[in-house]
Amino acid sequence: MRIVVLAGGIGGARFLRGLKAAAPDADLTVIGNTGDDIHLFGLKVCPDLDTVMYTLGGGINEEQGWGRTDETFRVKEELAAYGVGPEWFGLGDRDFATHIVRTQMLGAGYPLSAVTEALCARWKPGVRLLPMSDDRVETHVAIDEDGERKAVHFQEYWVRLRASVPAHAVVPVGADQAKPAPGVLEAIADADVVLFPPSNPVVSIGTILAVPGIREAIADAGVPVIGLSPIVGDAPVRGMADKVLAAVGVESTAAAVARHYGSGLLDGWLVDSVDEAAVAEVEAAGIRCRAVPLMMTGLDATAAMVREALAMAEEVRA
Amino acid sequence: MRIVVLAGGIGGARFLRGLKAAAPDADLTVIGNTGDDIHLFGLKVCPDLDTVMYTLGGGINEEQGWGRTDETFRVKEELAAYGVGPEWFGLGDRDFATHIVRTQMLGAGYPLSAVTEALCARWKPGVRLLPMSDDRVETHVAIDEDGERKAVHFQEYWVRLRASVPAHAVVPVGADQAKPAPGVLEAIADADVVLFPPSNPVVSIGTILAVPGIREAIADAGVPVIGLSPIVGDAPVRGMADKVLAAVGVESTAAAVARHYGSGLLDGWLVDSVDEAAVAEVEAAGIRCRAVPLMMTGLDATAAMVREALAMAEEVRA
Repeated sequence: MRIVVLAGGIGGARFLRGLKAAAPDADLTVIGNTGDDIHLFGLKVCPDLDTVMYTLGGGINEEQGWGRTDETFRVKEELAAYGVGPEWFGLGDRDFATHIVRTQMLGAGYPLSAVTEALCARWKPGVRLLPMSDDRVETHVAIDEDGERKAVHFQEYWVRLRASVPAHAVVPVGADQAKPAPGVLEAIADADVVLFPPSNPVVSIGTILAVPGIREAIADAGVPVIGLSPIVGDAPVRGMADKVLAAVGVESTAAAVARHYGSGLLDGWLVDSVDEAAVAEVEAAGIRCRAVPLMMTGLDATAAMVREALAMAEEVRA
Repeated sequence: MRIVVLAGGIGGARFLRGLKAAAPDADLTVIGNTGDDIHLFGLKVCPDLDTVMYTLGGGINEEQGWGRTDETFRVKEELAAYGVGPEWFGLGDRDFATHIVRTQMLGAGYPLSAVTEALCARWKPGVRLLPMSDDRVETHVAIDEDGERKAVHFQEYWVRLRASVPAHAVVPVGADQAKPAPGVLEAIADADVVLFPPSNPVVSIGTILAVPGIREAIADAGVPVIGLSPIVGDAPVRGMADKVLAAVGVESTAAAVARHYGSGLLDGWLVDSVDEAAVAEVEAAGIRCRAVPLMMTGLDATAAMVREALAMAEEVRA
């Protein structure tokens, strides 16, 4: 079975762990969000790709969900001693090596997809990890700060400001000119199932879908497309998805996110057991829906979620 | 008193410490060798400039004479785990930060001289540290390896091969097209004394002198130019200067190095007490010479060497 997964960072990576456990023989292709990529200290940092790679490759800091385990911060301390920031983005020494290798390879002319493949040769994540695009896409968020409307990089909104101010708009700058990375459209066309993990519907999955050709390829693939709600009981399970949902005019409810994806894209939608009441609303929108436990409290719970999604895919297919 | 010093790495840096102690009120400009600069992991590394900066700024690893004190090697370990080398060049985590800042600034368009000034704003070395040139100059060494004559980067010859094979030629690639960095010629023209520390006469001071205009400016400055022999008793005090001296056809003796610089450049030359016999030979070549203790065994010994050099400068002037 060939499964394509659109993934953001922490939520997507943990979901993929459950997927590997639930479908150990499946052929897995992950299309990773690169809209939150950022240049820091002259180095290219790809937080979502790295979170997937480290999580599936056994290098992740389990507690925080991103960055490397057994990490130190010598390089960052020294950069601060030079007065070079930003200080709000926590790059550890081990993590720096990844960004150094990536930047060196990009500088030598390799596209991000080839770089990602080279990095994965070490981490052996057990999935084929593709960036959504080799072209630069950068999610910017419009906010008011110091009395002025301005656009900041998504990481600045998310990490520096911790989404503490309203987002007036979320714009994947460059997405309209970006091309899907080599292999992305082919993987979708060849897939038996497409899954949307409980990742951020705006800045993770939404950004991937903003690359021209990807949404269309998924809609046209003629295979079940099943999503899992990142909203449980009207609040994001993790992170601050409600802030960016508001920016695109979507309520923070499991049903509203399903309608946001739409029946033209989504065949099935899993909501959490506490959102049983949303099932009818989602089905009224033409999307098959079921309420099941959706808290990724551990590998078993996550694998059970995956099995529900794959079971729903079979129902859709039948 | 305005003193200009041409400096390589470890020897030059230790000499400068003695100079600061012996002449605390002097205005010191250091023209640093950049011929051993190297790009590693996509980062610009300037070993000699950094050794001067760290030594005078209190960050040097005192035992090895280069690199940072209290160093760890996480980044390097990770790069090796990615299969990315070279592994023979020992960059520590703290040191990496310097190269990251430098590379970021160079990428943003700042010349190396401006970058060096910015780095020194942290280290406050107490001297004005200028790279010999903002243009790329890279010392290559011709060697025989695996039955073939080939050119390797100086660092590869010095660090990887530890100068264990004969050097057939030493070429400062790019030097003929390089321009002295801003301030270099002005500092020489304004100097009261020019000093050549006991640095490598070929790959350190020789490379600086290979930048068109610098040798001429020193010869034309009309001020005493005093050097200290890096060769004591027919062997280099430190390092492997004999290997590269052989490549340029110069004997490893204190007198031969003085003649190599020549009376057109050098007014005075200090040899070690054990080389008393060289004094007459050097003076016969038209260069004032004296035998004094030249082992930089500590700050006091080095300061005493500096005082001898400055005393000789006064004699030349008188």
